[in-house]
Amino acid sequence: MIEALDVLGLRPIKILFTTMAAALMATTAFTADPIPADLRAMALATFKALPSTTPAVVNNPITPEKIVLGKALFFDPRVSASGVFSCNSCHNLATGGDDNLETSIGHGWQKGPRNAPTALNAVFNIAQFWDGRAEDLKAQAKGPVQASVEMANTPGQVIATLKSMPQYVEWFSAAFAGDADPVTFDNFAKAIEAFEATLVTPAPFDAFLNGDDAAMTSEQKQGLTLFMEKGC
Amino acid sequence: MIEALDVLGLRPIKILFTTMAAALMATTAFTADPIPADLRAMALATFKALPSTTPAVVNNPITPEKIVLGKALFFDPRVSASGVFSCNSCHNLATGGDDNLETSIGHGWQKGPRNAPTALNAVFNIAQFWDGRAEDLKAQAKGPVQASVEMANTPGQVIATLKSMPQYVEWFSAAFAGDADPVTFDNFAKAIEAFEATLVTPAPFDAFLNGDDAAMTSEQKQGLTLFMEKGC
Repeated sequence: MIEALDVLGLRPIKILFTTMAAALMATTAFTADPIPADLRAMALATFKALPSTTPAVVNNPITPEKIVLGKALFFDPRVSASGVFSCNSCHNLATGGDDNLETSIGHGWQKGPRNAPTALNAVFNIAQFWDGRAEDLKAQAKGPVQASVEMANTPGQVIATLKSMPQYVEWFSAAFAGDADPVTFDNFAKAIEAFEATLVTPAPFDAFLNGDDAAMTSEQKQGLTLFMEKGC
Repeated sequence: MIEALDVLGLRPIKILFTTMAAALMATTAFTADPIPADLRAMALATFKALPSTTPAVVNNPITPEKIVLGKALFFDPRVSASGVFSCNSCHNLATGGDDNLETSIGHGWQKGPRNAPTALNAVFNIAQFWDGRAEDLKAQAKGPVQASVEMANTPGQVIATLKSMPQYVEWFSAAFAGDADPVTFDNFAKAIEAFEATLVTPAPFDAFLNGDDAAMTSEQKQGLTLFMEKGC
């Protein structure tokens, strides 16, 4: 699910996800706890169901060619100065979209100052990074490659590396067909944003929000009630 | 392709692959260079075509369940002490089965003493590690997890980590259905071997060895001739 942005504003979305999951899984509510008749309406005041399709993003029409390129870039450690880290190193799509570490380990085994947020559903965050300093994913994607404690690379070196591989030149040319010089750092970021926009994971909770009463068990509904009552 | 084991013996297979690729790509042979009429027969004295199916391995029948489990393990950084490295970190299947580094970077940013060999077609190596100290992949797979400069983990910790995840317990139980205690370090290694046995990459050279004259260009055949004449 995503938060109702006008309600919670800039608050990082991950806290909501994590706390919510904990509430749904670990609730010790008694089976006799009442489930409000208008639970869905109550929930919809705070949450919105994830969409069923890849969302549009600002100034970056999503195309299959950009997604293919962005997926390759997301998993490619050659974009880091060391050749060790890819986006997927800290935003591991096989383990919930992050690295399960308190703070990530980066270039030279340095520890970053903040926990890596999940890349799953990140396209719906109203801003990126924990302090919201990046407007969207295409702005965010330029950060970790250059951060000294993460990939420690430079835009020039990233582009030189990518241009050295004919397959990447071909992928960039297909994804940004109108550009005279398609292999640029801006396009690198746009392709990653396009791939990340596909990382949308509707769950039973979304089905419940969408009208399916049977999508959640009574215990889960009790947990949701408790979660909202406590103002989590 | 794979080397004829009786000819080259224990010589690491990767040298052959790499040099061969360089010869095929970078050959400056003149187009007038002759191509021996019996080129295929000459090549078959040294090389064998990769098989078209997943090969059998000793003491470890390959099953779909083991492959599923082994694939998950291969990509899972949670088997390392730091949570940073998976098998795929140094044997990256997206970049030729290795990490493109002179020597790999491991736990605490230590550099290993040797170049990471590719996991592609590694099932055909007559021994594993550059010094051949592991008999097969199931023996090899136990090494990097425990090496202090690589994943720096212990078998006990690996198994404790895996047992903490119900999905892994389910996967191990399905893959080793006859075992009273399926989540073991031996089975961990067998599952990885089963997955790695699927990493077989027949190429145009294999098609040529299998009888397709058109699979290689004249320039490639000249390169192959040169490669064999020089005794690479």
